[in-house]
Amino acid sequence: MTLTKDRLNKYLNIRRELSESKYINVNPIQRGGVLSKEARMALIEWGDGYSVCDFCPPQTPRLDKITNPPISDFYKDLAEFLGMDEARVVTRCREAKLIAFMMLARPGDYIVLDSLAHYTSYLAAEVVGLRIKEVPNSGYPEFRVSPEGYAAKIEEVVKETGRPPALALVTHVDYLYGNMVNAAKIAEVCREYGVPVVLNAAYTAGVSPVDGRKLGVDVIVSSGHKSWAACAPTGILAMTEEAAKKILRTSSVEGEWSKRRFAMKELALLGCTVMGAPLITLIASFPHVVERVGRWEEEVEKARFVVRELERIDGFKHLGTRPKMHTLIHMESQSFYEVSKKHKRRGYFLYDELKARGIVGIQPGLTKHFKFNVYGLTWYQVKHFVESFHEIARKYGVEVR
Amino acid sequence: MTLTKDRLNKYLNIRRELSESKYINVNPIQRGGVLSKEARMALIEWGDGYSVCDFCPPQTPRLDKITNPPISDFYKDLAEFLGMDEARVVTRCREAKLIAFMMLARPGDYIVLDSLAHYTSYLAAEVVGLRIKEVPNSGYPEFRVSPEGYAAKIEEVVKETGRPPALALVTHVDYLYGNMVNAAKIAEVCREYGVPVVLNAAYTAGVSPVDGRKLGVDVIVSSGHKSWAACAPTGILAMTEEAAKKILRTSSVEGEWSKRRFAMKELALLGCTVMGAPLITLIASFPHVVERVGRWEEEVEKARFVVRELERIDGFKHLGTRPKMHTLIHMESQSFYEVSKKHKRRGYFLYDELKARGIVGIQPGLTKHFKFNVYGLTWYQVKHFVESFHEIARKYGVEVR
Repeated sequence: MTLTKDRLNKYLNIRRELSESKYINVNPIQRGGVLSKEARMALIEWGDGYSVCDFCPPQTPRLDKITNPPISDFYKDLAEFLGMDEARVVTRCREAKLIAFMMLARPGDYIVLDSLAHYTSYLAAEVVGLRIKEVPNSGYPEFRVSPEGYAAKIEEVVKETGRPPALALVTHVDYLYGNMVNAAKIAEVCREYGVPVVLNAAYTAGVSPVDGRKLGVDVIVSSGHKSWAACAPTGILAMTEEAAKKILRTSSVEGEWSKRRFAMKELALLGCTVMGAPLITLIASFPHVVERVGRWEEEVEKARFVVRELERIDGFKHLGTRPKMHTLIHMESQSFYEVSKKHKRRGYFLYDELKARGIVGIQPGLTKHFKFNVYGLTWYQVKHFVESFHEIARKYGVEVR
Repeated sequence: MTLTKDRLNKYLNIRRELSESKYINVNPIQRGGVLSKEARMALIEWGDGYSVCDFCPPQTPRLDKITNPPISDFYKDLAEFLGMDEARVVTRCREAKLIAFMMLARPGDYIVLDSLAHYTSYLAAEVVGLRIKEVPNSGYPEFRVSPEGYAAKIEEVVKETGRPPALALVTHVDYLYGNMVNAAKIAEVCREYGVPVVLNAAYTAGVSPVDGRKLGVDVIVSSGHKSWAACAPTGILAMTEEAAKKILRTSSVEGEWSKRRFAMKELALLGCTVMGAPLITLIASFPHVVERVGRWEEEVEKARFVVRELERIDGFKHLGTRPKMHTLIHMESQSFYEVSKKHKRRGYFLYDELKARGIVGIQPGLTKHFKFNVYGLTWYQVKHFVESFHEIARKYGVEVR
């Protein structure tokens, strides 16, 4: 054993250099996952291992049946909040996708997904053994995904296999450009072909209003640590009653010798899922989330303000559809790229300049294209953010109109 | 929307009634998951969503490549600690099993597992579509699982299918009786037939010494929230280099339109796994875990002391193999069952009496058979625990020898 004390010491006091308390963090994946005050308090109370299992009902030993803490109520409220019939908390949005794909399709089936889908949508399909058809996007500068694109790809599958794909995956807002698709229209197209729709709402549910019933989707997946002010890892899996019959199917295995059966347990969930602190943060943040979703329009206003102000800088152009419908922003910046070519720190100059102004979260080294998210920043912080960019521009002789 | 403020208020201040700070909690699944002081501090620091992703390396964007916090180092140290070549933290022990089963076997293959296996071992096999052969146990009162049992079941599969099973699952210590099997001997038997062994060390690794190399197993799975002083959900997946080649296989899917590929991502893990606070608690507790594993013998002593003292009570008998090799104890208590028949609170009298003495975690209502775990209790607490039982016995006229 070479695990000496010296070697282990580095684990004893792990501090977060870029924590919320020290910096304005505009990391595109992190804004919606900042804990609420209530969640932060709950963390300490429920930190220990299986803390939520204290009152697991012996007759129905399952996470969603626990009433103290109020998990059972929460699952019902969560489903209602998303306009769905059933909801479960699973370990990640990607796991929610895997579960839905596994239970709604079979190996060899086709899934149609948009070409801006997160890598985990592809991986979940690969694990299940699905064949993938990608709905193209319109390319630079808008990268638009259209309902017609879904129709065309479904037709392609019908032509190739004689039947529609088993599933469609729709990325509500993508991770690259923060584009919001017309999910209702896409779902309508899919319904015409009888194709069930899984909506990846990782960037929308929890920060903006998402109503699965209105949108006409069969399943909503989302990410607690991305958009619900919860710890990682927490995923949300919400679905219609009809989809739930398949997705939440219980175990039917029987031990050949012992005759043991586990007929209570939801098979694809492997029984219980998030049995501790992260689930509690999701629950404790829920009132805060319900409230903040009502303020989504103001968040979009902030995003549009930022785009407008940054586009005053020579050579700055936001990529993706216009107007901005989401707070994740992808900026092209030819002028800062030119600066970086002559700067001794190369592309890192932007990171340095921002950090010196208390701003982090834009990928170090990038200047020509970079992403950030202004969700949940105060107007004061938003203004400081754009003024910092203006200052940096002027410092390096880039015009601000 | 009926999610009124009144309805949401119940989520605002969720307290844990049975927390460590208020009770001695002997819940059989909870003792090894009580956070270390270091983990509790780290929780607050790293609570926010994707907190560990601040310094995700852009060229190799993968959880196990992150060096700040020291995740990459930790994975190496974790593998070494378990006597394995590679380690990953996944979302649950059950997910680790699913991943191993999925990547080491195919639908229709046989898996041999012991009849005391946790339900999630059965479910993971069911999800993958494996057929199950159960190694019998010796039944009351020892419920012993033997290496010969494995040999017999493997032979049975060979006879039936012409080849050995794809996998063997060995439950190192079971959840029902806390029996420890002879894992080294079972692994030797399996090796003779060329059957890879997955060791479920949910109740052993993290509290007691487990060396995969010495035991001769291919994969070790364990549970951070059960035995590593970490938050749920955290699972451990450790393996030999050879097994890792299959289990950690990277994605090969390609977008047919976009030509996007994700060749860096570990397929069955769906890329990154535990991206936040629970992973940090596991890391922060690791020095503590390394240290406490060295004190395992004393923990076993405590368990034997408890068994000895409780068996002084008339009608008390511990079930499972003798002597106790683990701190999870299954007690049969004919005398307390007799008391319960006449008590107005029925079986709940024991729960009430213990709670009045500051002890919780034994399933309310049970008297004839009940389980508990004394891991990590101080000697003072252990003595209070047995004295409480003696007191309760005398109070109800049950003899203590």
